[in-house]
Amino acid sequence: MQVWKDYQEKNKDRFLSELFELLRIPSVSAKTEHKDDMIHCAETIKKRLLEAGADKVDIYSTAGHPIVYGEKIIDPSKQTVLVYGHYDVQPAEPLELWNHPPFEPTVVDGKIYARGSCDDKGQVYMHVKAFETMVQTNTLTCNVKFCIEGEEEVGSPNLGKFVAENKELLKADCVLISDSAMISLDTPSIDIGVRGLSYIELELTGPNRDLHSGVYGGAVANPITILAKMIASLHDENNHITIPGFYDDVAVATPEERALMAKAPFNEKEYANDLGVKELWGEKGYTTNERTGIRPTMELNGIWGGYTGEGAKTVLPSKAFAKISARLVPNQISQKITDLLINHLQSITPPYVTLKASLHHGGEPYMTPIDSKAYKAASKAMEATFGKTPIPVRGGGSIPICALFEKELGIKIVFMGFGLDSDNLHSPNEKYDIANYYKGIETIPYFHKYFSEMQ
Amino acid sequence: MQVWKDYQEKNKDRFLSELFELLRIPSVSAKTEHKDDMIHCAETIKKRLLEAGADKVDIYSTAGHPIVYGEKIIDPSKQTVLVYGHYDVQPAEPLELWNHPPFEPTVVDGKIYARGSCDDKGQVYMHVKAFETMVQTNTLTCNVKFCIEGEEEVGSPNLGKFVAENKELLKADCVLISDSAMISLDTPSIDIGVRGLSYIELELTGPNRDLHSGVYGGAVANPITILAKMIASLHDENNHITIPGFYDDVAVATPEERALMAKAPFNEKEYANDLGVKELWGEKGYTTNERTGIRPTMELNGIWGGYTGEGAKTVLPSKAFAKISARLVPNQISQKITDLLINHLQSITPPYVTLKASLHHGGEPYMTPIDSKAYKAASKAMEATFGKTPIPVRGGGSIPICALFEKELGIKIVFMGFGLDSDNLHSPNEKYDIANYYKGIETIPYFHKYFSEMQ
Repeated sequence: MQVWKDYQEKNKDRFLSELFELLRIPSVSAKTEHKDDMIHCAETIKKRLLEAGADKVDIYSTAGHPIVYGEKIIDPSKQTVLVYGHYDVQPAEPLELWNHPPFEPTVVDGKIYARGSCDDKGQVYMHVKAFETMVQTNTLTCNVKFCIEGEEEVGSPNLGKFVAENKELLKADCVLISDSAMISLDTPSIDIGVRGLSYIELELTGPNRDLHSGVYGGAVANPITILAKMIASLHDENNHITIPGFYDDVAVATPEERALMAKAPFNEKEYANDLGVKELWGEKGYTTNERTGIRPTMELNGIWGGYTGEGAKTVLPSKAFAKISARLVPNQISQKITDLLINHLQSITPPYVTLKASLHHGGEPYMTPIDSKAYKAASKAMEATFGKTPIPVRGGGSIPICALFEKELGIKIVFMGFGLDSDNLHSPNEKYDIANYYKGIETIPYFHKYFSEMQ
Repeated sequence: MQVWKDYQEKNKDRFLSELFELLRIPSVSAKTEHKDDMIHCAETIKKRLLEAGADKVDIYSTAGHPIVYGEKIIDPSKQTVLVYGHYDVQPAEPLELWNHPPFEPTVVDGKIYARGSCDDKGQVYMHVKAFETMVQTNTLTCNVKFCIEGEEEVGSPNLGKFVAENKELLKADCVLISDSAMISLDTPSIDIGVRGLSYIELELTGPNRDLHSGVYGGAVANPITILAKMIASLHDENNHITIPGFYDDVAVATPEERALMAKAPFNEKEYANDLGVKELWGEKGYTTNERTGIRPTMELNGIWGGYTGEGAKTVLPSKAFAKISARLVPNQISQKITDLLINHLQSITPPYVTLKASLHHGGEPYMTPIDSKAYKAASKAMEATFGKTPIPVRGGGSIPICALFEKELGIKIVFMGFGLDSDNLHSPNEKYDIANYYKGIETIPYFHKYFSEMQ
């Protein structure tokens, strides 16, 4: 619509500078030292939602970081779109690998480099600016609700309670989430699923103190060696996960589904080149897209123990640690997998060491039907601005809250993501293309328009 | 001798406070930030040697940290004892596990808690104070030379060149080293061997950047998982090291030697209790004392990769690192083992990752004969002050320079150590019993006396 285009063209610089202001706030939810930054970030979003035209915006405190809720109800009899997103970001470490400061957005070749630029501040703010566009041009066709939380990157431990206690407030006809990627601006796609998550931390204790590795080496178990043996045993020679029962609930994709997936444009050689690896790795019997889409996986997210500084220290350490997470697919259940994982690790812990395993967070896998009104509206909206029908694909990431939204509110979710897999999410040099940011702002009003027209 | 006893009793408080001054200098050789502390420490030792009665003391600069050389030649025709020791210490990390600041010596229950208290400043300084005792009481019977270096904890990379270039300066009849332990004050013992060392560092690179573990997890090799598999493969189910050729040069102990070792007082249950482990670990077919004495071992000294901070980060890291060291026994050769180790690790590196392996430092194993004059003098000296003949034992640690001293100077080494295995060397809360410190100062003059009497 020309009226949207004109408004957005006139305000595009401001759309960018406002996003930069958000990106400058180091809202790292995992670290307690950023508690005040989290509040500052929530308040900034509240201010911007009010300026954009929300009737009311409230900040709900939780046991963790606050939730921003805002709304504009034009007519209770009309369709309501609930926009979910998150203002928290992953830790920026390792800092030395960033080419620019993670919390000082820097534009290079049309890309915004900053932690949270794509995941998820950039994508959340597209909705705020699309909303402003519709309000200011008097073209709002749906009621709009915003639920922007501050704990997605730590597993949304407090959003469940908020949703359960505020069902009436959050009542809507669909949940619209932009926290995922598409194949490219040339090949638009829509995620139809996200993986679930079980994230645990291990602490393995051998001797009760760090020891001289010469005096004691060879006579007492080294917890790093034992941890390595335990980790090594989790994947067999086919890179299949060895935990008994782990695959029991995995929904098996039909040959038709797999054939459809194989049609998505994908070049394995380019993929490997982009990652700088000679050979790809993964579960035998599955393609790369299947490995990240329809199969569960287990990754080591961190490991540490002993002396990790400059030079050499001949120590036999008392402890070794690891962070491990499994990505889950339908119909795996996060709590069940976490229990299997921890019980299995306990069962393979040899008597020389003791294991303390604890849960960081979990989330359920989620699939959205492609025949829902919300999916159809998203598909039509992308067609309008990209000139092509988006391809439905299964995403590898997780948005822990999806299953809960469907259960509590009884509505479908649609993932309209504008990021790219190459955006370095959770990595140094996270970026978001300015073109994708503007494309999102351009596309979202069409979603509202088409969703309101479907009855 | 009463004259030594009287002198030492009168000066005992000063002997302790001077040591504390040394312990307050954070002379960590592994860390470049301590360069100035190393110089300060060397200068302090020079000053104290001159005060104690040395004719001359010089500080020799090297490509790394300086060497302190001092001497007192009473008569060139008399025997010369070369005292070797080191003023550098291991890094103090992890700092949070120390009960007292590592560089502020604190006495609790008669024990000095400080980094370097036992290894090796406390034991080096016994020699300085024993030397002072003999000079001040006019009882010196041997010429004395001191060679106190600042790089023992990083493998003595520059001492070899110094020794080779200064053979005349260092000419002596034995090398006396106090940088080891004895069983206890009730059960004196003398180490008759030290193990060699090969210390390497590994850097394993998978993808060229940190990745989102959901988006890429399962499709690209995780370097932590691969590193764990590689480490796990280094020991078989009998805790035997699997590197081809690793044991080829190991001198097999005779049944007689093993029977003699088995006679040394040792309680496996107390040993395990002291370490807080339910079960000991080690190479099948060998006792604990054999595992640390006559068998080579391989220890993980450090491991790190991915996110190691607070909370959770769902990252598939680009790199994983490890520090690994092997302890060697006669007749293994450090360079040969390092090559075997690095070549083996390269050969088992799968094509999904690349390995960069580098040597930190090495050192040869060393055995000293128990029929040498130096050993006999040490045994007699300990008999004089302990009232018991010390037991000869094989130590598990390494003093990289021993083999070199013998080769370059053509003389035997004797290890008269006054520490205890429980002194937390290289660990938090390193300590040295004040009683052991004084016992060393009391015993050393007897060594000089008996050594001078042997012709």
